[in-house]
Amino acid sequence: MDSKLKNQKLIFNWNLYIITDEILSQGRSHFDVARAAISGGAKVIQLRDKTASSRTLYQSAQKIRDLTREHGISFIVNDRVDIALACDADGVHVGQNDLPAAVVRQLIGEGKILGVSASNLEEALQAESDGANYLGVGPVFEARRTKSDAGQPRGLELITTVKAHCNLPIIAIGGINASNIREVFRSGADGAAVISAVVTAGNIRKAVSNLLEIITSQKGES
Amino acid sequence: MDSKLKNQKLIFNWNLYIITDEILSQGRSHFDVARAAISGGAKVIQLRDKTASSRTLYQSAQKIRDLTREHGISFIVNDRVDIALACDADGVHVGQNDLPAAVVRQLIGEGKILGVSASNLEEALQAESDGANYLGVGPVFEARRTKSDAGQPRGLELITTVKAHCNLPIIAIGGINASNIREVFRSGADGAAVISAVVTAGNIRKAVSNLLEIITSQKGES
Repeated sequence: MDSKLKNQKLIFNWNLYIITDEILSQGRSHFDVARAAISGGAKVIQLRDKTASSRTLYQSAQKIRDLTREHGISFIVNDRVDIALACDADGVHVGQNDLPAAVVRQLIGEGKILGVSASNLEEALQAESDGANYLGVGPVFEARRTKSDAGQPRGLELITTVKAHCNLPIIAIGGINASNIREVFRSGADGAAVISAVVTAGNIRKAVSNLLEIITSQKGES
Repeated sequence: MDSKLKNQKLIFNWNLYIITDEILSQGRSHFDVARAAISGGAKVIQLRDKTASSRTLYQSAQKIRDLTREHGISFIVNDRVDIALACDADGVHVGQNDLPAAVVRQLIGEGKILGVSASNLEEALQAESDGANYLGVGPVFEARRTKSDAGQPRGLELITTVKAHCNLPIIAIGGINASNIREVFRSGADGAAVISAVVTAGNIRKAVSNLLEIITSQKGES
């Protein structure tokens, strides 16, 4: 199977996409969050840290790479292409303030997954033409203070609009939790990315397995 | 000429190594500082920014890459291997809190220059065995508040000690200015890196040409 097909198959398995955040995780490290999320059934982990030194980030990435490899889980690094390459992550996720997607694709080659954040249709179409493998679409709802650069919530309409015009898998993001995650899938998202709903939970494993149960029952209905 | 020899020849031409800093540069951009420093005679520019977004840093790096290429000047990116690769810089400089030097060498290959900061002999020897092309040795003197992670000044003895045990070119760093730069070369440094002494100057071009004059007259004496 070529890497493009393999990547696509992986991404469509990403019902629930967990993004780590050490500021919100109440003393638990990126690794702690990843480990608990995996034990709850997560199939993909994104390491996101905009403040750590490169050395610290690299060390976190290495540990999560070992863990995810051991469990057959996808591992994505946010923003830092060098860290992703250094620890042989499965891919990189970039926002509109990170390296341009087309540049990232050149740096990582065809074998690695490229995710791109899009907050409107124009950005989504640009990402598609730049070689993205999936889109992070949002913010859908009002997010907690995890991403200062996240912008105003765009509502479920953004998912519908992007779905109608782009062929890439859509991972919805922004304020998604147990009470609204059904709507996200009903609107056409292929997966839901969560930060606060998981990393602030007292029991991360349970929060993940609970969200996965809701997704499974929602998908059964549709 | 193979890339290793070519790099070595370049580095020995780096009498004065200019590091940009937008926090200290009184409203002048990285590009402004680079342009003025080049007009003053600088032969190498390092772009250093620990706070900018990846997109902003990439845009600065691209502009400085174009400028330095036009003038035949070496261009080094601090810390961010991905940015260095994305803009085809001549090399990367890493400190002890950045990606490990051996990992950086794997990411950049043999063709690009790798500089490593060393604040003691052990770090210098490790950098040499990890594949560094030159060492940033210091802090020699008390630096102004440019690098919060710079540590205590080590004095000129550090240069002498590293010189005695390592074969790599030594770029001394930390609080170097017009009044103490002679001592740095007398102690065996191959070059001097400056931040404050240049980026805080009202006339950056003049500050650079003045430092270069002192270096030339010092080298003439020795």
